[in-house]
Amino acid sequence: MTYTEKMLDAYPAQINLDHRQLAAVIDALESCAQACTACADACLSEPADRLAMLSRCIRDNLDCAAICSTTAAVLSRHTGYDANLSRAQVQAAIQATKSCGDSCAEHSSRHEHCRICAEACRETEQALNALLPQLEPTSATGPPSQSRPQQQQQQSR
Amino acid sequence: MTYTEKMLDAYPAQINLDHRQLAAVIDALESCAQACTACADACLSEPADRLAMLSRCIRDNLDCAAICSTTAAVLSRHTGYDANLSRAQVQAAIQATKSCGDSCAEHSSRHEHCRICAEACRETEQALNALLPQLEPTSATGPPSQSRPQQQQQQSR
Amino acid sequence: MTYTEKMLDAYPAQINLDHRQLAAVIDALESCAQACTACADACLSEPADRLAMLSRCIRDNLDCAAICSTTAAVLSRHTGYDANLSRAQVQAAIQATKSCGDSCAEHSSRHEHCRICAEACRETEQALNALLPQLEPTSATGPPSQSRPQQQQQQSR
Amino acid sequence: MTYTEKMLDAYPAQINLDHRQLAAVIDALESCAQACTACADACLSEPADRLAMLSRCIRDNLDCAAICSTTAAVLSRHTGYDANLSRAQVQAAIQATKSCGDSCAEHSSRHEHCRICAEACRETEQALNALLPQLEPTSATGPPSQSRPQQQQQQSR
Repeated sequence: MTYTEKMLDAYPAQINLDHRQLAAVIDALESCAQACTACADACLSEPADRLAMLSRCIRDNLDCAAICSTTAAVLSRHTGYDANLSRAQVQAAIQATKSCGDSCAEHSSRHEHCRICAEACRETEQALNALLPQLEPTSATGPPSQSRPQQQQQQSR
Repeated sequence: MTYTEKMLDAYPAQINLDHRQLAAVIDALESCAQACTACADACLSEPADRLAMLSRCIRDNLDCAAICSTTAAVLSRHTGYDANLSRAQVQAAIQATKSCGDSCAEHSSRHEHCRICAEACRETEQALNALLPQLEPTSATGPPSQSRPQQQQQQSR
Repeated sequence: MTYTEKMLDAYPAQINLDHRQLAAVIDALESCAQACTACADACLSEPADRLAMLSRCIRDNLDCAAICSTTAAVLSRHTGYDANLSRAQVQAAIQATKSCGDSCAEHSSRHEHCRICAEACRETEQALNALLPQLEPTSATGPPSQSRPQQQQQQSR
Repeated sequence: MTYTEKMLDAYPAQINLDHRQLAAVIDALESCAQACTACADACLSEPADRLAMLSRCIRDNLDCAAICSTTAAVLSRHTGYDANLSRAQVQAAIQATKSCGDSCAEHSSRHEHCRICAEACRETEQALNALLPQLEPTSATGPPSQSRPQQQQQQSR
């Protein structure tokens, strides 16, 4: 069990998502961010005559790294949970992993780092797509300061 | 003129957006991220009997800071521009600035830092909403590695 | 006055640093991070025969962007202020702005974006060097949970 | 084998560090960043009468998360490797994991999330301390644009 799942289990209020699935998504996002950072750097060390072909891949790697890392942080916060925000950020991450996966896949036969990074992007995209339908808006009933959904729901059961 | 606008003017290919407007959006995102980081910290130094009321505001601040910062980076990259990705991330930022602006606005009368942060969020939300319609998908014509829109367009003039 | 300085003025406890100077450092760090992100991307759109020469500059840009952004966040937090941590992160930022400034300066005559980015790095490096001696360790007197220096000092006046 | 180690093995030039050890450090930094983000959020959902005691822990969590994440990115880049920069950022991360580990350890008996997070911080601090002596400055021989150490060294063998 990773620290991610242990931390979900230790959260002091209820989280309305399967802990194992959510932890797997967060871990995939972190691994994907790391692979994208490394792939951008590996591309930069390819021979001069390959670099221009890889410039778009590098850009997609950088966007995907930043977006996956931010999305992992958003999904790691449950206090004052806001389904609209989680959904919007997850949708951006689905787009980022798709774009970067496509870019890397183009270079998979020539560059092993692109092949591995494409694999990380695809896995993460799938995990995000499986999570998305479960990020249902909660029935917000009060002003923001009072809507700490997990605790309210826990109390009302 | 900020460094942001100077850097847009110095970009070696064409950027299909008004430089001044785009720079203003990027600068607003950076300022908003900074204000949100500072507001979360200011909330943490409020008296003990206020902290529980501010926990959701702190969470929204942290999400908004991360999302605005990532969105600024995405909008600062023009090589291999991907309108779908930019749009998705801008939509997440609109949601984040809206949610955080709402949370901070609730505490504006009591906490000056929340009032200022709400103002930064509203300004950024408006700037993003004005930019969004201009992030039109370009007519992609080839595989990713060949679609470096700015340079293609520059060459075709 | 930027949002950064307004937020420092609105902090609910005492900050033992000149607000104007600290705000200027934080704003410089954010501007430098932005310039570095933009310079890395501009380098990627330079002609193929220039790219290999710019690969180290791109790498330095990416490190400097991440480090400046993180340092700005650390300097924006005053609750539970820890001078040792602030000093260590500021020293890393001094090194990052120096390395990136040197890399960009090498390409200043050919690439306007490198010239502008070098300027942003130098300004930030100077601002950080001026701040560093003022980040004195506070006389910690208790365990971490009790050492919220600003509030303790405020109470003791 | 994690994606991190696979990506190190796929890097197109030589990396003068043990791949397994470096991958373990990067993975520890990412896990620690994640645990710190989650611990800050878990603290925010603790009962009102505990929050004030946890405010410093939350702040340390946020700094540690940002610093570990940035340090992981710096250590994931090998093109144009700069030992001075890596060392400075690793030293900041050692300080951050120490401070945050201390803060969390204080609350370990009451809060399971603090206990787990302290463990993640200690592990990462140890891994960083073991890596630090190996981040030796390379003998830079030319201007930055020519000093891509890994490839130079590979060519000279």
